[in-house]
Amino acid sequence: MEQTFTYSQLYAFTHDAFTAMGCNENDATTATTVLLSADVRGIDSHGIARLVGYIRLWEAGRINAQPNIKITYQTPSTAVVDGDAGLGLVVAPFAMQVAIDKAALAGTGWVSVRNSNHFGIAGYHAMMALKHDMTGIAMTNASALVAPTFSIERMLGTNPIAVAIPANKQPAFVADFATTTASNGKLEILQRKNGDAPLGWVQDAAGTDTPNAHALKDGGIMLPLGSDREHGSHKGYALGSIVDIFSAVLSGASYGPWAPPFPAYVPMPENMPGQGLGHFFGAMRVDAFRPADEFKDHMDNWITRFRAATPAPGHEKVLIPGDPEREMEAIRMKDGIPLNESVFNDLQKIGEKFGIALL
Amino acid sequence: MEQTFTYSQLYAFTHDAFTAMGCNENDATTATTVLLSADVRGIDSHGIARLVGYIRLWEAGRINAQPNIKITYQTPSTAVVDGDAGLGLVVAPFAMQVAIDKAALAGTGWVSVRNSNHFGIAGYHAMMALKHDMTGIAMTNASALVAPTFSIERMLGTNPIAVAIPANKQPAFVADFATTTASNGKLEILQRKNGDAPLGWVQDAAGTDTPNAHALKDGGIMLPLGSDREHGSHKGYALGSIVDIFSAVLSGASYGPWAPPFPAYVPMPENMPGQGLGHFFGAMRVDAFRPADEFKDHMDNWITRFRAATPAPGHEKVLIPGDPEREMEAIRMKDGIPLNESVFNDLQKIGEKFGIALL
Repeated sequence: MEQTFTYSQLYAFTHDAFTAMGCNENDATTATTVLLSADVRGIDSHGIARLVGYIRLWEAGRINAQPNIKITYQTPSTAVVDGDAGLGLVVAPFAMQVAIDKAALAGTGWVSVRNSNHFGIAGYHAMMALKHDMTGIAMTNASALVAPTFSIERMLGTNPIAVAIPANKQPAFVADFATTTASNGKLEILQRKNGDAPLGWVQDAAGTDTPNAHALKDGGIMLPLGSDREHGSHKGYALGSIVDIFSAVLSGASYGPWAPPFPAYVPMPENMPGQGLGHFFGAMRVDAFRPADEFKDHMDNWITRFRAATPAPGHEKVLIPGDPEREMEAIRMKDGIPLNESVFNDLQKIGEKFGIALL
Repeated sequence: MEQTFTYSQLYAFTHDAFTAMGCNENDATTATTVLLSADVRGIDSHGIARLVGYIRLWEAGRINAQPNIKITYQTPSTAVVDGDAGLGLVVAPFAMQVAIDKAALAGTGWVSVRNSNHFGIAGYHAMMALKHDMTGIAMTNASALVAPTFSIERMLGTNPIAVAIPANKQPAFVADFATTTASNGKLEILQRKNGDAPLGWVQDAAGTDTPNAHALKDGGIMLPLGSDREHGSHKGYALGSIVDIFSAVLSGASYGPWAPPFPAYVPMPENMPGQGLGHFFGAMRVDAFRPADEFKDHMDNWITRFRAATPAPGHEKVLIPGDPEREMEAIRMKDGIPLNESVFNDLQKIGEKFGIALL
C-alpha cells in the first residue's frame, strides 16, 4: 500500500530525525533539503528511503553527526576537504560551495573530498552552481557492486556523474546518472515487484547474465554502462574508474573494492587505503569562457534544436537531460510524494525510536 | 593486400605532406607526431588513413595550413583558444599546453577551443599532461552521426573523451573512448570486410536496428553508448551532449547538427551558430590535491588491485584502460605499421600530387 505525504510533512519529520541524531540546526536543514531533493525529483531510491540507512550508520559509529568539516589543502582553483565522517548530505554541499567560491575568483574550482559518506543525489550538488551562472559537476564513489569488463569481482560502486549547465529561457541541462547500465534504484523497483531485469543489467556470481533482480543478494554483480565488451562496457568501466580515482585517490578516501559499505551490518573492508567515501566537485564560471548571456542564449538554441530532433517511430519527443526529473518535481510538489509500505514502516520505526511523528 | 612500413617511413612521408600543404616546420612536426600516434597505438581509423581527408579539406579551403592560433580570453584557470581554422592536429596541442601552463600556476587549467578541425586521437592530448604529473582531459565534438535516445536524427558526433592519470611504477591510466556504443573506426573495419555489426551499434534511416555496417551510407544513425533506453543510451546521449557543449557552446564553435563535416565533399551546414569544430581540454596538477608521490603510489595500488580482480570465465585477466594501446605501441614500433590497400593507394596519390615518395 502506497501512502502519499506532502513535502512539508516529510521535511518536518526528516529534519526532526537529523536533529535527534545530534545534527545542529544548519546541518539538519541542509541534510533534509538534499535528501528530499531525490524524492521530489522522482529518484526514490536516494531519498527518504535511505534515512534508515543513515541512522543505522550513525548508530554503528560510522557517521559523525557533529563533524568538523574542513579544507585541508588548497590552491587557487583546487581544494581537498576532510568530511570528518559527517553525513555526505552535509559534507557535499560544503565542498561544492568551496568549488563555487574558488570559481568566482579563479574561473573554475575543483574539490576532492575524503572521509565522507553517501551524499544523496549527485544532481543536487551540481545544480548548486546554476544560480551563479556556473556549470556544476559532482561525482562520488560508492560501495563496490560493479565488476570491470572481463571480471566477476565487485570492484567499483555505481559511481554517478552529474553535470548541470545553465540556460537562459530554457530550463537548465541536468544530467545525473550512474556509470552502470542500470542504477541500483531501478533494480530495487524490480526487486519489490519480483520483476525480471533486462539482460545486461546484472550477472550471477558465476558471471552469467541473469534477469533475476535479486542476483546481487547471492553474490551477483552489476554491469558497467554498455553491459558487455561488444557494446562498450569497457567505457562504462573506465567512467566508473575515473569517478573512483577523482573522488577517492585524489583526496585520500578509500577506493575501489575498499570503499566503505552503505549497509551498517556489512563489516568494513580490511586494510582500507584511505578514509571513508570520496566525492569530487567542479564549478566553472560560464563567463570565464564567454559572456554569460551569450552562452545561455546558445544553450537555449542547443536545447530547442535537440527538442525538435525527429522522434523515432513510437516516440513523441526527444528529452533533454533533466526533463523527467523537473516534470516529476512539478507533480510531486503539487500532489505529494508517495511512499511504499516498506519505506513507511521504516519511518514509523524511526519515529518510535526518536519520539517523533510522521503526520 | 596489407603492406607494413616503419614508423620512420610513415613519419617522413607525412611530414613531407604537411610541409607541401604549407605547414611550417614546427607545425608539420606536431601534426605528424599527433596523427601517427593513432597508428602506433592501433587506432588505425584516426591515423595516416585520415591524411587524405585533411588534404581534401585543405584543398576545399576549409583548413588553413598557416593559422594564427591565439588565446582570445582568459582567467587564472581558463582560456578560450581560436584555432583560425588550422589543423586540429596543431591547434589541440597548443590549447592543451595552455591548460598545462594554467595548471602549473592555478592548480588546474581548462581550455575551450573554437574554429578548429579534427584533432586526431583525444588520448594524445590528454597524455601530454602526464610528464608534468598532471591528469589530462581531452574531448572534441565532431560531424553529426549519432541520434539522441528516442530520435532518428543525426544530432551529435561520436564525441570522444580521453582521461590520462599518472602512476608511479605502473603505466599511466589512459581512457580514450567515443561516447557511442562502437567507434566509427570499428564500423569501418566491418565495412571493409563486409562483416555484420552487433545489433545495438547502428540503425537504418527508419530507426530499425540493423547489422548492416554500411547503414550510415544510406542515412542510418549511430547509437549512443548504451544502445537503447533500457540499457542506458540516455547516459551515452548525455555524455555526448556534455562533450558537445563544453567543446563548442563554451568556446563559440559550431555545435550539434551544425558541426562541420569531415568529408570535404559534404556541404557545410547552413546557419552555423559558431566557428568550426570545438575541443575542450583540462589539466589538473596532482599536487594541487595531495603530494604527487603519494598519489602515484596509490595509483599503483589501484592499478595492481584491479589487474588482480577475479577474471570472468573464459577471460584471462582484467585490463586497465590504456593497456591494449600500450601493448600495440610496443609491437608496432618494433615490427612496423601495417597499412591496408585502400590507405596505401590514397598515400600513393598524395605522393604523386606533392612529388613525395613513401619509401
